[in-house]
Formats: sequence, C-alpha cells, structure tokens
Amino acid sequence: MSENEPQSAGHDARDDAGRISFDALVEAIGSTLIAAGASPPVAAILARNCASCERDGALSHGVFRVPGYVRSLSSGWANGAAEPVVQRAGASFIRVDAADGFSQPALIAAEQEIAEAIGETGVAVVAIRDSHHFSALWPDLEPFAADGLLGLTMVTGGASVIPRGARREVLGTNPFAFASPVAGGRPLVMDFATSTMSHGDLQLTAEAGRKVHLGTGTGRGGRDTDDPREILDEGGLLPFGGHKGLALSLMVEILASGLTGSAFSYQDDLVFAESPEDGGTARTGQLLILIDPDRGAGGFAGRVAEFIAALREAGLERLPADHRYRARAEAGRTGIPVTPAIRELLAAAVSPRG
Amino acid sequence: MSENEPQSAGHDARDDAGRISFDALVEAIGSTLIAAGASPPVAAILARNCASCERDGALSHGVFRVPGYVRSLSSGWANGAAEPVVQRAGASFIRVDAADGFSQPALIAAEQEIAEAIGETGVAVVAIRDSHHFSALWPDLEPFAADGLLGLTMVTGGASVIPRGARREVLGTNPFAFASPVAGGRPLVMDFATSTMSHGDLQLTAEAGRKVHLGTGTGRGGRDTDDPREILDEGGLLPFGGHKGLALSLMVEILASGLTGSAFSYQDDLVFAESPEDGGTARTGQLLILIDPDRGAGGFAGRVAEFIAALREAGLERLPADHRYRARAEAGRTGIPVTPAIRELLAAAVSPRG
Repeated sequence: MSENEPQSAGHDARDDAGRISFDALVEAIGSTLIAAGASPPVAAILARNCASCERDGALSHGVFRVPGYVRSLSSGWANGAAEPVVQRAGASFIRVDAADGFSQPALIAAEQEIAEAIGETGVAVVAIRDSHHFSALWPDLEPFAADGLLGLTMVTGGASVIPRGARREVLGTNPFAFASPVAGGRPLVMDFATSTMSHGDLQLTAEAGRKVHLGTGTGRGGRDTDDPREILDEGGLLPFGGHKGLALSLMVEILASGLTGSAFSYQDDLVFAESPEDGGTARTGQLLILIDPDRGAGGFAGRVAEFIAALREAGLERLPADHRYRARAEAGRTGIPVTPAIRELLAAAVSPRG
Repeated sequence: MSENEPQSAGHDARDDAGRISFDALVEAIGSTLIAAGASPPVAAILARNCASCERDGALSHGVFRVPGYVRSLSSGWANGAAEPVVQRAGASFIRVDAADGFSQPALIAAEQEIAEAIGETGVAVVAIRDSHHFSALWPDLEPFAADGLLGLTMVTGGASVIPRGARREVLGTNPFAFASPVAGGRPLVMDFATSTMSHGDLQLTAEAGRKVHLGTGTGRGGRDTDDPREILDEGGLLPFGGHKGLALSLMVEILASGLTGSAFSYQDDLVFAESPEDGGTARTGQLLILIDPDRGAGGFAGRVAEFIAALREAGLERLPADHRYRARAEAGRTGIPVTPAIRELLAAAVSPRG
C-alpha cells in the first residue's frame, strides 16, 4: 500500500453519483493510518474494519472516526505497532495483552488459541487488556458467527455516562454485542451501547445541529436536556432502559475491565475530557465469550432459522443487522456514498503531495 | 418433613406482629410441594428457593408462586420426581436434561461436573433443557458468586411479550442475570426480565387493582394501555428499553432455548394461555456461563470492590441486590412478614387435617 494509491484508487472508484468502492476506501484509510504511525498489518486490520462500518451504514464508527485514530496514533496515545501478547490461562481462557495497541489486531493475534480452545473444550473466553477500541463490536463477532460459533462481547472505556443519582460520569457507553449463526442465511448480529446512544452518534447529532429526545442524557447541573452539545460538554448520557440498562452496563465494566485487568471507565474520565473525539479508550478492556453450538442440542442453526422465520411471520419486520446487510448489499452494487468525512479523508490523503 | 410440621412450625414461628421464620416457611412450602407430588429432595430445593425469594422481598417469585407449583405438579405438567441426566459434551460444556422436572435440581445435579470443568478449563457452560423455572434467577447465581465465580444466566418460557410491530406474543419475559464476587462484601447480583415487567409482577399489580405505566405493554388490538389485566388477557408485555431490550430478549431465546435444545417461547404460547399463573414453562431452557475470575488479571474481587466503592462515592446509592440484602437482614432479625399468600399457604397446609 503506497501513499499514492489512495488518491488514484479513490478518485477512480468514485462514480459520478459520488460513490467510492470498498477496496478504495480501505486503501485510503489504511495509508492514512500508516502515515500516522500504524504498522502496515495493524493499518490493514483497522482500515478494513472502519471501511466495513462505513459500507454498512454504521457511520458513527466509519470514516468519521479516522481523525480520532490519526490523533491517537500520532500523539503516541495508542501504539499502532504494538505486538499483542497471547497467553493461555486455562484450556478455555485466553488472556491477551494488547500492549496499548488496538483491540482488533489483539483479537486476531489470538485466533489460533481461540480455535484450539474451542476444539478442545467447546468454549473460549478471550480477555483483552490495555487496548483501544474505537469501532463497533459487530465486526469482531460476525466472522466467528459466519464460521458457526456463538459469540458475546463487550467493551468499556471513557467515562461519559451519568446514571440517575450519580453526580459525575462513572460509566462508559459500554457496548454489548451478540452473534449467532443462522442456517441458510447471514448471522444474526446485535450490537448496542448500554447508554441511550453511542458517543459517536451523540457527536454526529450535535454536529448536525439536531436535538435528542429528553431522557437521552443530562446537562448542566444534572438537568434533563435535549441539546446534545450540552450533554457532551456539561453532562453525560444516561443508561438505556432505566435500572436494567444500568445493570447491564455494570456487568460490562466488571467483565470487560475487571476480569481483563483493564481500567474501569471511571478511571479514564480525564483522558476522555481531553479528547472526546478519539474515544478516550486508554487501557480499555474487551471480553469475548465464544461457544461452539454443536456441543449443545443438535440442529442449532436450523432451529435459529425457524425462530427468526417465526418472528418475521408474526410481523417483526426489522431484526438486528438487517439494516447493515441491506446497506452492504447496496454498497456492493453501487459503491459506498461519499460523505463529507470521506471527502476530507481523500483530500488529506493527497495533501502532502499537493 | 412430615405433614404436621408446617402447621406447628408455622404457627410457633409467627410472632405477634405476623412474622414467620425462614425455616418454618421452608417447611410449609416443602410439605405442600411433597403433597402435590414432588420428591423430598426436589421439594427441599424448591422450598428453600421460594422461601429465599419471599425473605428477600422478591414477592413475585415467593409464596405467591406456590399455587402454580402445586397445579403444575398435581396435573403432571411438571415432573416433581424427575431424575436429571448430566452429560459432559466438552471439557467446558455440560448438557443437563431436566427430564421435564425443575431447573434448580437439574443445576444442582450438575454441580460436580461444573466444579470439574471450572477446575480443568476455567469456564463452564451449562445448558439445561426441558425444564421448568418458576423462580427468579439470582438464587441460581448467588451461591456460585459467593464461592468466587462469575456467572451469567438466562431463561425462556411462555410467550407473553409482543414487541412493537408483532401481531402476537412471540417472546417470553426472558430474564437475564449476572453475578460477581466482591472482596469483603456480598456478591453483586443483578436479575431482570428483558420485558418491561416480570409476568409475576404484572399479575401482582393486576390483583392489587393498580395501573401500570403506559409503555409497559399493549392490550386489545395492540393499543397502548395502563391496565395490567388487559395486558394479561388481551395483549402482551413490551420488551424493556426499545430495540435494545428486544435484542437482548432474542439473545436469551437463542441461548436458553436454541442452544439447550428446549422450546422457544413462541412454541409455548398455547400452554401459557391455559395456565398463566403457573408460568407456562413447558420444555423451558436455561443457560449458565460460569467463569473463574482467577484466570484473568489478578486481584479481581478487590478491583470490583473498588469499582463499587467509586460508584457509591459518586452518588449511586442503590445498586442491584441492595434491596434484597436489606430485606434479608431485616428478615433475619424479625422474621418474614406474613402476607395473605403465606396465610393461605399455612391454611392449606393444615386443611387436610381440619
């Protein structure tokens, strides 16, 4: 991947309607990350991940995040050339020290150990510590589910949530994800912040000058507000779904930070206040639980397919991941829509030569 | 445990203020379940579980449930003398066929295999199939957490939830629970329905003649209603927290029903309509994931204690399980308050002799 490629690939691939191909977007992101200090293998993993989010319409984890990646890398905040250390702490328990690098390459570094644990025991718990995770969680799980495994994962980092009763941010947006194989179809993959919104969506809403629903977060002095800028600058998001969402968020802290040996989100708050746009994920933890469903009752994926068919038949038209698969299919036909964030990415990629 | 004991124990243990001791309540419930067809060991497990819920103020899973247990047992709907079959399907994967009996004795039957799996691999997945679970989930996890293990569990059974867009009940209330050890304190245990309310709480609210918040469930023709009776009889509960709670509920179906080989909740709906008060849990599944935190980073329970202290210091006064531990301590000092349900239990226990 040379520095020249993004420009040519990007411009060649954009059609008249303002579209860019997936491969060209991966190239543009990758070369930008390399220029900021990422090693080529790390850049390749992150670029593919980020471009996948953009392609699937998950814009709050797409190209919008690239400036944050760049700042985190160029400031030395994240180590873009970290060498993860994988350690088998039990037949089913894998520890990964991301060594202040990103979670995604740390997970990939553990792939062999994961396969062995699953083969030997039916289950793999993967505890990633001291990492950075700026992306969605579904890209981490979808490949496992496509290979026939069940997966759960969760991540902490950057205090931005103030539960009712608390006087300051004590929790991260603490996303949780789950994926299951489905016979004859794409995996069912769900991925949601345990806060009312993800931090990225809150930023995008603020930048677009839109309001949020009351109940999304609190502002100055803990008051309810529909102004996303006030939530970002003077208050915090709320957990979704009242005390139940709060309970889930606590679980994410205990598993993704406590069990992995990473910082709890409340220990990250200063970092977050300084650079909200890069996710503030110092010493973030991620936990994955992967299960071979063939150890359970027979015919698992077929039964899940029947369950999903029954839900759709009962009128549930939209299931988790439907919108992503739809956007992906559309992007496969016509390319990825070029947003202002992509235009900036492509312009920045060529500016050193201009 | 003789048939005479409940009366004498019950009456002796109640003080003037209408209190009953925990042990006397266990006796009264146990003898009632034996009279309905449960084997003494099954009755002892269920009675202890049910009395614990009552003692801890979780009344919707307390003595209120005894008539449902009795009907399920005496009708042969649940097998109160079932012999669970435990099978190790992987070093970390334990299948338990509850053989149409209750989940709690099935879990206890697997204790030895669980301890071995944890010791050998660090993780145990327990997949219980074809069971009945009328109780809360926290009593299943709290003992593991008290022994130093992390636990997650979830259960399905009886379609009573209609997500927005669906035309009929397709999901159970699908509770989810998590427990963690805490150094120097009681375990943190959270347990919540992925519906807006548990079915038991909805019934209790209807019986008390109270209303529910709009958004709790839908009634006739899918309309929003605040009448719990209309939700029970002509509509269904909603998932909590919109599409995120729905996603969690789908996960519970896939893990607790799909993976274990039990009926999905939507396959249980006829049963449920016939006997809502006994939980309608034919062929219910339960999944547990138990993890030894000592395989992760060191000092786990101490770090969780620090996290909880930080939350309380920030103003979060009420954390999950606080109210149960408070009720338990109060019951330990003064006994368990005698409710109308307990009075009926004690009266029924003596009536054969009257």
